[in-house]
Amino acid sequence: MQYNLLAFSISIISLIFAWVLARWILRQDLGPKSMQEVAQVIRTGAKAFLKRQYKTISFISILLAFGLLLVYGFTGDWLLGWQTSSAFLFGAASSAIAGVVAMTMSVRSNIRAAAAAQSGLPSALKVAFRGGAVSGIIIVAMSLLGISILFLIYEWLGYEIIKIPSLIVGYGFGASLVALFAQLGGGIYTKAADVGADLVGKVEAGIPEDDPRNPAVIADLVGDNVGDCAGRGADLFESTAAENIGAMILGVALYPVFGIKGVLFPLVLRAFGLIATMFGLFAANAKENEEPMSALNRGYWVTSILATVAFYVVTEQMLGNVLFFWAGVVGILTSVVFVYITQYYTEARYRPVKEIAEASQTGHATNIISGYAVGLESTGLTVVTISAALLGSYWLGNQSGVEHGGLYGTAVATMGMLATAAYVLAMDVFGPITDNAGGIVEMSKAPENIRKITDKLDSAGNTTKALTKGYAIGSAALAAFLLFSAYLEEAHITMVDLAKVEVFVGALIGATLVFLFSSLAIRAVGKAAYYIINDVRAQFKEKPGIMKGTDKPDYARAVDITTRGALKQMILPGALAVVVPIVVGMWLKAEAEAGLLMVGTIAGILMATLMNNGGGAWDNAKKYIEEGHLGGKGSDAHKAAVTGDTVGDPFKDTAGPSLHVLIKLLSTLTLALAVLFI
Amino acid sequence: MQYNLLAFSISIISLIFAWVLARWILRQDLGPKSMQEVAQVIRTGAKAFLKRQYKTISFISILLAFGLLLVYGFTGDWLLGWQTSSAFLFGAASSAIAGVVAMTMSVRSNIRAAAAAQSGLPSALKVAFRGGAVSGIIIVAMSLLGISILFLIYEWLGYEIIKIPSLIVGYGFGASLVALFAQLGGGIYTKAADVGADLVGKVEAGIPEDDPRNPAVIADLVGDNVGDCAGRGADLFESTAAENIGAMILGVALYPVFGIKGVLFPLVLRAFGLIATMFGLFAANAKENEEPMSALNRGYWVTSILATVAFYVVTEQMLGNVLFFWAGVVGILTSVVFVYITQYYTEARYRPVKEIAEASQTGHATNIISGYAVGLESTGLTVVTISAALLGSYWLGNQSGVEHGGLYGTAVATMGMLATAAYVLAMDVFGPITDNAGGIVEMSKAPENIRKITDKLDSAGNTTKALTKGYAIGSAALAAFLLFSAYLEEAHITMVDLAKVEVFVGALIGATLVFLFSSLAIRAVGKAAYYIINDVRAQFKEKPGIMKGTDKPDYARAVDITTRGALKQMILPGALAVVVPIVVGMWLKAEAEAGLLMVGTIAGILMATLMNNGGGAWDNAKKYIEEGHLGGKGSDAHKAAVTGDTVGDPFKDTAGPSLHVLIKLLSTLTLALAVLFI
Repeated sequence: MQYNLLAFSISIISLIFAWVLARWILRQDLGPKSMQEVAQVIRTGAKAFLKRQYKTISFISILLAFGLLLVYGFTGDWLLGWQTSSAFLFGAASSAIAGVVAMTMSVRSNIRAAAAAQSGLPSALKVAFRGGAVSGIIIVAMSLLGISILFLIYEWLGYEIIKIPSLIVGYGFGASLVALFAQLGGGIYTKAADVGADLVGKVEAGIPEDDPRNPAVIADLVGDNVGDCAGRGADLFESTAAENIGAMILGVALYPVFGIKGVLFPLVLRAFGLIATMFGLFAANAKENEEPMSALNRGYWVTSILATVAFYVVTEQMLGNVLFFWAGVVGILTSVVFVYITQYYTEARYRPVKEIAEASQTGHATNIISGYAVGLESTGLTVVTISAALLGSYWLGNQSGVEHGGLYGTAVATMGMLATAAYVLAMDVFGPITDNAGGIVEMSKAPENIRKITDKLDSAGNTTKALTKGYAIGSAALAAFLLFSAYLEEAHITMVDLAKVEVFVGALIGATLVFLFSSLAIRAVGKAAYYIINDVRAQFKEKPGIMKGTDKPDYARAVDITTRGALKQMILPGALAVVVPIVVGMWLKAEAEAGLLMVGTIAGILMATLMNNGGGAWDNAKKYIEEGHLGGKGSDAHKAAVTGDTVGDPFKDTAGPSLHVLIKLLSTLTLALAVLFI
Repeated sequence: MQYNLLAFSISIISLIFAWVLARWILRQDLGPKSMQEVAQVIRTGAKAFLKRQYKTISFISILLAFGLLLVYGFTGDWLLGWQTSSAFLFGAASSAIAGVVAMTMSVRSNIRAAAAAQSGLPSALKVAFRGGAVSGIIIVAMSLLGISILFLIYEWLGYEIIKIPSLIVGYGFGASLVALFAQLGGGIYTKAADVGADLVGKVEAGIPEDDPRNPAVIADLVGDNVGDCAGRGADLFESTAAENIGAMILGVALYPVFGIKGVLFPLVLRAFGLIATMFGLFAANAKENEEPMSALNRGYWVTSILATVAFYVVTEQMLGNVLFFWAGVVGILTSVVFVYITQYYTEARYRPVKEIAEASQTGHATNIISGYAVGLESTGLTVVTISAALLGSYWLGNQSGVEHGGLYGTAVATMGMLATAAYVLAMDVFGPITDNAGGIVEMSKAPENIRKITDKLDSAGNTTKALTKGYAIGSAALAAFLLFSAYLEEAHITMVDLAKVEVFVGALIGATLVFLFSSLAIRAVGKAAYYIINDVRAQFKEKPGIMKGTDKPDYARAVDITTRGALKQMILPGALAVVVPIVVGMWLKAEAEAGLLMVGTIAGILMATLMNNGGGAWDNAKKYIEEGHLGGKGSDAHKAAVTGDTVGDPFKDTAGPSLHVLIKLLSTLTLALAVLFI
């Protein structure tokens, strides 16, 4: 059977499905004119951001593609240079398109979800979640499609199938590179706009959040789209791409055992995961009076169960060994456990968030110490889960008696974890859609009952956003081990001996890279925020009518200025992430580079977990107090909690998510440039 | 020549020198009765703390010694069990004595330094610094003496010299264990008392710092002694012990090249470092009107230069290869570079601290973000320095043409860095002495001109405390690589292959251990602070006369309650640090344990650097504003800076210094228990 044709066909079918779904969304009611006006401005702002951002990213990508070509060429293989740099550009372009699609759908669904809220929560949920689903499916299907196309092209050119995976590693690198800058730029932008809008609106001018008189308010709403949709879209696009390529390279190493089936197995699995997601989607329709999270969870369970069944069938068919199915189940379970860990550390009904809220009573400093301690603590369960998953799936694979079976077991676990990627991504994009719907309802001064519905959706969206981050870091950790092994294959080394001084130094530098990158990322938010703060102050001065409501602020100008500020600030951390691994690899060679990669990944996993969970816990401790606990809004405890929330913002929305991408960029970069380090 | 007798003799001479110095200090004037009363209470409190703390630590040590015996016994070697557990107890007792000595001298020097301030700064500086020097010399000399004695005993018992280093690894483990609990307990105590005294005194009762009406004020002054003297004393005791043993084990591996000289080389070097320190000490006498730091720096340079000369002579004599001398110079230079890095990141005249102070103007949150970013950033230069030192000394050693010469080169660099340990330790203990002298002057209501002198000394003490932390982490990092190699020798493994799944999991757990330990350590401060806060509140209620000045608070009760709180809180993080490596080693075996050790060390170095420098920078940003910049005391910026300072306290005085010890405990523990993991 032509398995790559199968994967190709399913990805085409998924894209058609997404297209039908998108048309359904576009047919939905746009609501009153007041809403449409607001949505229009958000859409324009988001478009302006993307345009400027992708101009910068394109420039960087073309530069790097050219560098790749030269580097391969001068080390003696111009053909491979052309192949790698074309794959790189193809990956970069696909990743960029994935981001644009996610964002385009999001800024069209938000207004329709707001309008649907007029006829009740179930319809609003349906529109918002389907909006997310279009993005989720398109992103995963496109990543599959891109690899399938490359595969088919090289097959048609007469290449041996087991040679192909190495030729397309550039695709993963291109996708990661775009994802890094998309997530970093988006993350800086979204928090700079958020902090700036709050500081200059709430604090200085004394007007409420989402007040249309604040010139920064649209920039803030645009921010949710560029950070969560475009950024996370590109992130998960490259995750699935990188993991597919890595697993295929491992499949090549196992060619004597499974033949071509081992190489194509990841693609087929991914394809069936897409089908499971489509069914799960329909199970997520809410009943009247049902809580949004309960409906979304039902869909998740349906997807997971169907994915498990598909897993069983595909494993039996292609690998003929039930142990690998169980390794996949380990991966699926891991994703479920991660969801619960994230909830435990970031929801107000558990001990950690309550502890932070209580610590807020004794002041700002105790709130910070407590939240930071919670973030640090949350790495414990996270690592226990990852360790158990790695050891468990390795053991299962090993029991199969296949040579290198253990390693392949961990690869299959990763595939299990990523089987539900499209559904999880749909939940993630659901977040900014509902957030924006709430903003639109607020700004268009819609009646109270509609506002209540969008508030409920918004709160569910906050939960799904947090869960996705936990999922993303878990899958990055699991995939990392697989990508290490692929790198070792490509670099022709068989071990990574930390007892060698240069490997240890590489490891030390890898971990430090994570610390420096985090430092630059969180600092960038502060610097970019000054751009918008200064502009808002200037607008208030230029047009005194804005505050009286007689004059309209220039939203677009605020968006544009913030965009420029954010993009300027993303260059330094982005460059660091690309330059350091290349320098270390060329100077200390392949094994030291592996040390950098592995220990950088470990540090990245821990730091991202700390940042995501710490940030989420601070956020919800504030919300817990705002709900009326411990003195409620306006109390001293609340003020301290606001400090924690503000500190947590760049942690969880800028540095944390960018670290996920950094981890994977390290893997794909080393994979694509392995020849240089030998 | 009997090199071990030489080391033994020099350590005895050093102890005599310290004894003479101590008698000189005890002969100094005690000042007016008002001062003596205050000093008496501090001394009693410190004694009470130590007594209770060492009771707990003795219990834990005896338990562990028994465990060691059983574990060795049941794995088949009862004799080695007895040897190891006796060495363990000997090391533990020596480390405890080192802590007690440092503290005893400190609580006797503080009052004399305060009294000497009456006749000018030079005399006060002399008394305070000599007080520190007694501790510094005794600690380093005792560590040398302990190892020399064990060596002489085993030689006398007829053991082959190259077998001996392995028999005394228990000594290092015992010393580290006591150091961990001493530093952890002391660090928790000191910050709990500090935070508690401030919160309940300054904030609730509205009385100034060091006001005698505050029942917590003595507990606060005691805290500086138990954290910085006893804690850091035990820390540097075990550093020198562990590094000596590690280098000797490496010397054994090089026996074919250098013979017995390679094994004893570290001891002889350390002995000459002691002599260099004694001369440096006399060079540190301040001239009239000289800044304290300038005098201390002069002494440091004299010590460094003499140590370098001694290094040259000893290397020529014992190793006969000048390349190893240059490796030692790399180490000495590394310690100098670390001093400058620490200054750059924690002193107000450079960019980082200024940046934090400026960020304080926009509120608490921006202060925190900025300080955290600075802490993260400071890992960059730190790691570049460590990497350069490791690669440089390895390269030099390798050039010698000696087998394993590269490794021995890094060992010699470590010895170079630690050559000035006694002098650095003297500067460190100088910190709490001056701090206490200031407190005594304040509480005894001495005249303004004396207060100015002790303030100046106190400020120099803050600088030296910060420098020592940088030095401690640098030497821990450099020594780590040497101790890894010693572990590999003991565990009979030749590599640490991160590409193996169990080694990777070990590495992941090692890094996480650092995060969890930090979480528990900083959280412990908050928990222990509640004990003292509650007691002070109770005292104010029970005796309303305290606030009016008609009744005296019960200082001893506050000390005792805080002590109990702090000791209770040190158990969990301490147990974690001991149990996790043992479990991982026994379960995943020697190579995975090496992964835990190495990557745990990397994470520990980075996290400790972040905590120390971040904390120091926050502290000085506050002081910078208090000096009148950006609105000065009482401004909003100042309030935000106080938040940063409070967050930084448990970072730099509890978690950071405890992490140094954790790193070395990992090394000595794995070294002592290596047989279990094979």
